[in-house]
Amino acid sequence: MSDDALVVFLPSGKRGNFPLGTPLLDAARSLGVDVDSVCGGRSICGRCQVRLEEGQFAKHGITSSLANASEVGEAELRYANKRGLVEGRRLSCQTRVLGNLVVDVPPESQVHKQVVRKRADVRDIEVDPEVKLHYVEVAEPDMHDPSGDLRRLEQALESQWGITGLVTDLRVLQEIQQALRDGEWKATVAVREEKRLLAIFPGFKEKIYGLAYDIGSTTVAVHLCDLETGQVLASDGMMNPQIRYGEDLMSRVSYVMMNPGGHLKMTEAVRGALNGLAERVAEEAGIELTDILEVTVVGNPVMHHLVLGIDPTELGGAPFALATDQALNIWASQLDLRINPDARCYLLPCIAGHVGADAAAVVLSEGPHLRDEMSLLVDVGTNAEIVLGSKERLLACSSPTGPAFEGAQISAGQRAAPGAIERVRIDRESLAAKVKVIGCDLWSDEEGFDEAVAKTGVTGICGSGIIEVIAEMYLAGIINEDGVIGGAGRQEDPIVQDGRTFSYRLYRDDDGKELRVTQNDVRAIQLAKAALYAGVRLLMDRMGVEQVERITLAGAFGNHIDPKYAMVLGLVPDCVVSKVANGGNAAGTGARIALVNRAARREIEEVVRRIEKVETAVEPKFQEHFVQAMAFPHKSDAFPHLSEAVTLPPRGVAAGTAVAANQGGRRRRRRAS
Amino acid sequence: MSDDALVVFLPSGKRGNFPLGTPLLDAARSLGVDVDSVCGGRSICGRCQVRLEEGQFAKHGITSSLANASEVGEAELRYANKRGLVEGRRLSCQTRVLGNLVVDVPPESQVHKQVVRKRADVRDIEVDPEVKLHYVEVAEPDMHDPSGDLRRLEQALESQWGITGLVTDLRVLQEIQQALRDGEWKATVAVREEKRLLAIFPGFKEKIYGLAYDIGSTTVAVHLCDLETGQVLASDGMMNPQIRYGEDLMSRVSYVMMNPGGHLKMTEAVRGALNGLAERVAEEAGIELTDILEVTVVGNPVMHHLVLGIDPTELGGAPFALATDQALNIWASQLDLRINPDARCYLLPCIAGHVGADAAAVVLSEGPHLRDEMSLLVDVGTNAEIVLGSKERLLACSSPTGPAFEGAQISAGQRAAPGAIERVRIDRESLAAKVKVIGCDLWSDEEGFDEAVAKTGVTGICGSGIIEVIAEMYLAGIINEDGVIGGAGRQEDPIVQDGRTFSYRLYRDDDGKELRVTQNDVRAIQLAKAALYAGVRLLMDRMGVEQVERITLAGAFGNHIDPKYAMVLGLVPDCVVSKVANGGNAAGTGARIALVNRAARREIEEVVRRIEKVETAVEPKFQEHFVQAMAFPHKSDAFPHLSEAVTLPPRGVAAGTAVAANQGGRRRRRRAS
Repeated sequence: MSDDALVVFLPSGKRGNFPLGTPLLDAARSLGVDVDSVCGGRSICGRCQVRLEEGQFAKHGITSSLANASEVGEAELRYANKRGLVEGRRLSCQTRVLGNLVVDVPPESQVHKQVVRKRADVRDIEVDPEVKLHYVEVAEPDMHDPSGDLRRLEQALESQWGITGLVTDLRVLQEIQQALRDGEWKATVAVREEKRLLAIFPGFKEKIYGLAYDIGSTTVAVHLCDLETGQVLASDGMMNPQIRYGEDLMSRVSYVMMNPGGHLKMTEAVRGALNGLAERVAEEAGIELTDILEVTVVGNPVMHHLVLGIDPTELGGAPFALATDQALNIWASQLDLRINPDARCYLLPCIAGHVGADAAAVVLSEGPHLRDEMSLLVDVGTNAEIVLGSKERLLACSSPTGPAFEGAQISAGQRAAPGAIERVRIDRESLAAKVKVIGCDLWSDEEGFDEAVAKTGVTGICGSGIIEVIAEMYLAGIINEDGVIGGAGRQEDPIVQDGRTFSYRLYRDDDGKELRVTQNDVRAIQLAKAALYAGVRLLMDRMGVEQVERITLAGAFGNHIDPKYAMVLGLVPDCVVSKVANGGNAAGTGARIALVNRAARREIEEVVRRIEKVETAVEPKFQEHFVQAMAFPHKSDAFPHLSEAVTLPPRGVAAGTAVAANQGGRRRRRRAS
Repeated sequence: MSDDALVVFLPSGKRGNFPLGTPLLDAARSLGVDVDSVCGGRSICGRCQVRLEEGQFAKHGITSSLANASEVGEAELRYANKRGLVEGRRLSCQTRVLGNLVVDVPPESQVHKQVVRKRADVRDIEVDPEVKLHYVEVAEPDMHDPSGDLRRLEQALESQWGITGLVTDLRVLQEIQQALRDGEWKATVAVREEKRLLAIFPGFKEKIYGLAYDIGSTTVAVHLCDLETGQVLASDGMMNPQIRYGEDLMSRVSYVMMNPGGHLKMTEAVRGALNGLAERVAEEAGIELTDILEVTVVGNPVMHHLVLGIDPTELGGAPFALATDQALNIWASQLDLRINPDARCYLLPCIAGHVGADAAAVVLSEGPHLRDEMSLLVDVGTNAEIVLGSKERLLACSSPTGPAFEGAQISAGQRAAPGAIERVRIDRESLAAKVKVIGCDLWSDEEGFDEAVAKTGVTGICGSGIIEVIAEMYLAGIINEDGVIGGAGRQEDPIVQDGRTFSYRLYRDDDGKELRVTQNDVRAIQLAKAALYAGVRLLMDRMGVEQVERITLAGAFGNHIDPKYAMVLGLVPDCVVSKVANGGNAAGTGARIALVNRAARREIEEVVRRIEKVETAVEPKFQEHFVQAMAFPHKSDAFPHLSEAVTLPPRGVAAGTAVAANQGGRRRRRRAS
């Protein structure tokens, strides 16, 4: 036993006896300790760095000394001089066991690195991408034993990396001879799914990249990720250029119905956006487009079909049949992406005809299928995509909310852009509003507001602004539970008669130009929120629950609304307010998880398969829930948790008794408060 | 047992008892009788036709009567009215067992049809292509159980055809919804390798097609095949347009060496030819290009690399490394083929740096690996590709014959085209020649020859003509064993002094224009044939044999030379003359076999793997054999079989003693005969 030494690896605590002279990397591998290496132990990649610990390790029963490891040799010194090596770090491939050792493997040397996410309530991302780099040394051709370059490369991959049964892209064949000779028979190859040879680079290649796209009806967003560390190097977004064919989803589908074959124009448009974004993030990160080898794409069903060049007409009417609800692996070039020509693209599965790959990505990001809590995920757009459930069971549906939440169908509505009102507070006494607009940090009653917004003006109300103004109008008693705007009470009130109904004057600039909220605006929001809530309620019925324990509001809109106001309006059911979260760009995050973690792809495919799809259009109770949910918050439900967080007006005022009754109601409430 | 009946299927003789009412197709399937069906027993495709036999079948112990089968029903009648049914034929899917039956399955109703080849000495082709059609009936979408169209199609393929684990091309997804609705939820799909969904057609689709390409340096040829019957519907060929970059292989490789990246021009040129040919054969056969779903390609290594867009520079010098020596499956669109966009292309494996996929195809067509005989396959071009062996062992090499056999380096040489001399006979007394030219059936001494060739004239000598004239010159004593042209004997002889050597006047037209064979021409052929023979001899040494039992001359040139003259010149070793065959377009046939039979692909891949590659450039004995093989036939070998077939001049005349000695030699021989 004197020729053996004990080596303990931290943090795993794995240990074993090894003959003196064993390289630490080999020792780690034989114990199943997770240590990375791209170059295969040739002191080129520096991925296998470890730190040797010195001292008495009573728990492990050994004394560890730096003298128990071989000294820094020539190869390691060359690496340190060329690429730098942090004090105390050693290349485990070059360090040999000379006595008992305690070896610490830092997180960045592990194959399965973790990307820590900002939100504490979601799991971290394990980095294990579908495409990986492998450095190989290939035998030169020999006239006495002729064989193709590819065969010798395959033999090298098998003996040096244990990879067998490779399928090789044509482009690799077109480049293999030059690459092997340029690299003097050393090369780095990119292998996908442990079986597809996607690319070959001469010599040692350290980095390849991936793009995670989230294609929304309004905005297309992308993350550029380092496929080795999983880190986001750059993110960007742009307006979906399909907008010229229709503001919202259904008008784009209508465009195709009116112009057969017209979907291809939209396909071309959105693919142009994907390329534009790729160029922008590549430039920002200072990388070559040809080093991007993997792409993931999520989007709602219509976006999913359009980017694939599939006519979305079937999604425009019952029975809302998707071309496919399964995950897809295609060539990125099939989406006309001008990145590495052999890059591949993974599209997450769609859940149902109106619940898309974006909803699947939200599930992947939020992980309701991993939780005991009853979680509700809502992605609000023209259609709300709704998922409810826990690790036991998951349900999904969509609700036809229409475009009101996106600012369409609202008289003063507009897209979220500089000049749009996004925050609103209404004084409970004077009923006067103060607002905040996008692009300015000041409230409208603060010093300097007028100058700050002089450039854009105050141009309209965006989606999140509409939620706030209507919620504030309700809280201030300007509208009653039935959504009727009261008025004509006091001369000075900002409530004006507008034909047979009343409008609320939200903002008036120095020129006297006004932004108003009309009775029709309130009705449009009522219809939208009732549809959303009815869908949620349907899933709760099906699940047999009366309460949800966790709510995530996803999507560009869901991400900007204040959860409290969403609950005041009754967009979502009652819940502990602290458990209602904005999901951030949860769909984009889901795309990013699928980009850097191959197991996440199998996971979401499996989860989507077992999600039970509920079609609201054929559920008789949908209409009933819809009607009941028109009120604020709604007639049928108690909101115990909401009441703790917000001072709600007293309930029970009859609706539809027009101005006087409302005004009276408002006065009564004001007295009561 | 009275509810059962005995059914005997012919010609297999398979038999079994079946409950009355069993459809014959089901009975056949359960016994493993080979009966085709594309529509799955729906009386649509008509592939399952059988003939019921009437009478006493003592051998089978039953009496069979037409009354023992169900009568022709509505569905069968509809088929017969629509598509016709030969008298006495029944659709086995519609015919039920009502008593004992003898059922004959005609060859065209078998799944594994045979294509009979003209030559008796080669095996027939079994039709079992990589791509097959399947007719399916797909469930309509249902709001109560939402699922994508693809999922329901997959379920139909699984339940109706037992096909699982499908991977689907993007284009199918782009077309699936329209196709299913156009076909009222009936469709025919093309499935490759039992796992790739390549295409979908509304309703019932009967035929798909394939192309087998043979890309030669000079000529590109194609066969268009019916993938169901395996029959060739049209064949065509055209000159390889790469010729503008170099007449022969090595000059094209040189072009790339001089013009880096220039290979892509040749890639584009040859792909243009592939498309041109596809259009021509599709038009000739009256089919749509989009119904072509499978392609096979063979060619020598340089052609193989160029069509793939791979720089062939490495093939231009030692160690002659191929990019890959393995078979390839790619998209036809990667070769820019404008056929069905989802068609795939299979390229047979190359054997070695100078022994290409064309040689592999010749092996597949000729089947030396299936024979006990020692077979020699020779494909003559700029490089001769040589395969020697039997079922025990196979060897391959190439020999640098140069372009002489193709008419280059010959003073009066030209391509095989109208006006070129292809047949020659020399009178043993007068030494005068008569010739035949391409495009005319008359010999030059026959009535009407001058008029018949007036249009083209007699313009030169093509490759097969050169072989004949030099062989005849040797047989007539005009050249001796060493290849020296004798002359100056008789004034009237068609032998003229040409500086320090002599030339033979092969043809003179009325204007006095002459076509001569010069001493340099003879030397060029001697070098070429010595290189060819030395390669063959090297393989025979390695194999340890002194005699081959079967020779196939393949390639455009090999197909046109008279085997007898090839042996007279010593291009190939001695062999029973009846066992020396022109292989026809054996490479093209090999490509065709791989097109219609999937097992042939696995077979040739396995055979190529075990072929032992011999590199002539590093074999010291090559030079020795080469020098010895310069003589006619050659110095080192006896030609016992050749001597039986042809009257050879006596041997042993010393070479190099110039005119007088040769002339003397000729006179001696003439006296001896």
